Amino acid sequence: MGEKKVDMKPVNEKVISPAVIKRLPRYYRYLGDLLKNDVVRISSKELSRKMNVTASQIRQDLNNFGGFGQQGYGYNVEFLYNEMGRILGLDKTNNIIILGAGNLGQALANNQEFDNNGFKIIGLFDVNPRLIGMTVRGVEVYDIDALGEFLAKHKAVIAALTLPRSKAPKIAKELVDLGVKAFWNFAPIDLNLPEDVLVENVHLSESIMTLSYRIHSINS
Amino acid sequence: MGEKKVDMKPVNEKVISPAVIKRLPRYYRYLGDLLKNDVVRISSKELSRKMNVTASQIRQDLNNFGGFGQQGYGYNVEFLYNEMGRILGLDKTNNIIILGAGNLGQALANNQEFDNNGFKIIGLFDVNPRLIGMTVRGVEVYDIDALGEFLAKHKAVIAALTLPRSKAPKIAKELVDLGVKAFWNFAPIDLNLPEDVLVENVHLSESIMTLSYRIHSINS
Repeated sequence: MGEKKVDMKPVNEKVISPAVIKRLPRYYRYLGDLLKNDVVRISSKELSRKMNVTASQIRQDLNNFGGFGQQGYGYNVEFLYNEMGRILGLDKTNNIIILGAGNLGQALANNQEFDNNGFKIIGLFDVNPRLIGMTVRGVEVYDIDALGEFLAKHKAVIAALTLPRSKAPKIAKELVDLGVKAFWNFAPIDLNLPEDVLVENVHLSESIMTLSYRIHSINS
Repeated sequence: MGEKKVDMKPVNEKVISPAVIKRLPRYYRYLGDLLKNDVVRISSKELSRKMNVTASQIRQDLNNFGGFGQQGYGYNVEFLYNEMGRILGLDKTNNIIILGAGNLGQALANNQEFDNNGFKIIGLFDVNPRLIGMTVRGVEVYDIDALGEFLAKHKAVIAALTLPRSKAPKIAKELVDLGVKAFWNFAPIDLNLPEDVLVENVHLSESIMTLSYRIHSINS
């Protein structure tokens, strides 16, 4: 076919803005849906209508990675989907441990969407004896005291923290000492870890407060 | 005291940027911590060191609401905390219903932080007969078919959707017809609701993909 098979690495090693990065998973989701519906190609205009963003933003975002629509042809859906997955690191297996096996930890372990994208939960950890030994979708809940032993045998790329605010910072520091370099943090606190450690926060109370702001700034 | 008691409404009804709004809950959290530690006042410089943002950003953000530090005095912590809470609508009671009483729905219902900020879970709803009739922290799980009846008696300001992707859009539309105007959406799909309906998305798989991007863009 005539589509331009450009390798979608950032052009000239230029820094991609966090705003663009945050939009990539949404492109990936829409492209996955198109693929499931057997759509072979799509113009930036059609994609923009579906995603409710401007066609020019789509072109600009994708240009960060070398672009690769073709004038008059549009984007090859499968190619773009696969490239986008590769950019997002979804072609690799990302082993995850979950700290805290309460409702939220279990909800994450039960999320089937993660499996499909290379995220593999390899263990849950808790202090609660009623939870330890239990399995969630086949994954065991271990005693948090066994963390060092576990990580000596298994490599975890990401640690998801679904711990109380009072416990999260201490355990995060221990995990850094044990070699974990990326945190998905649900605890409502800033972790303040070394600069080379990545932290992605999901602060649920901040999210609902933002919604509350929007509700009341309209009504007042 | 000498502090400037300005009413923190947006100045001249100017539009506050979403980026500023997203930062407000974090200010609120830090101010709450300071207050718990009996800190009476704080300079933008000290606050900036704690929060790891620039003092000038803090001053600019707060200036959106009329500012109210005083040169050489700094911010009155309790006053700023209360005003920030008021701006965020946390002085009102926001009744919430949770659609989906699985792990994630239960995790939200169990989150004590919400109570302290005026968010009140008034009901959970599910289709699963094993969950219906159960209570989570005293809040009942109702049959989702009873939604109309429930909302005829109780006003819900916010509907939290912890539903599968396949069910969320239909139920969201029903809720809009029943008068719900704000959604806290955890389903991995865009809801496409009428323009006057507010949606705050928490897309967990997009969040972890963003983290994966950052991990693999460093390592590659």
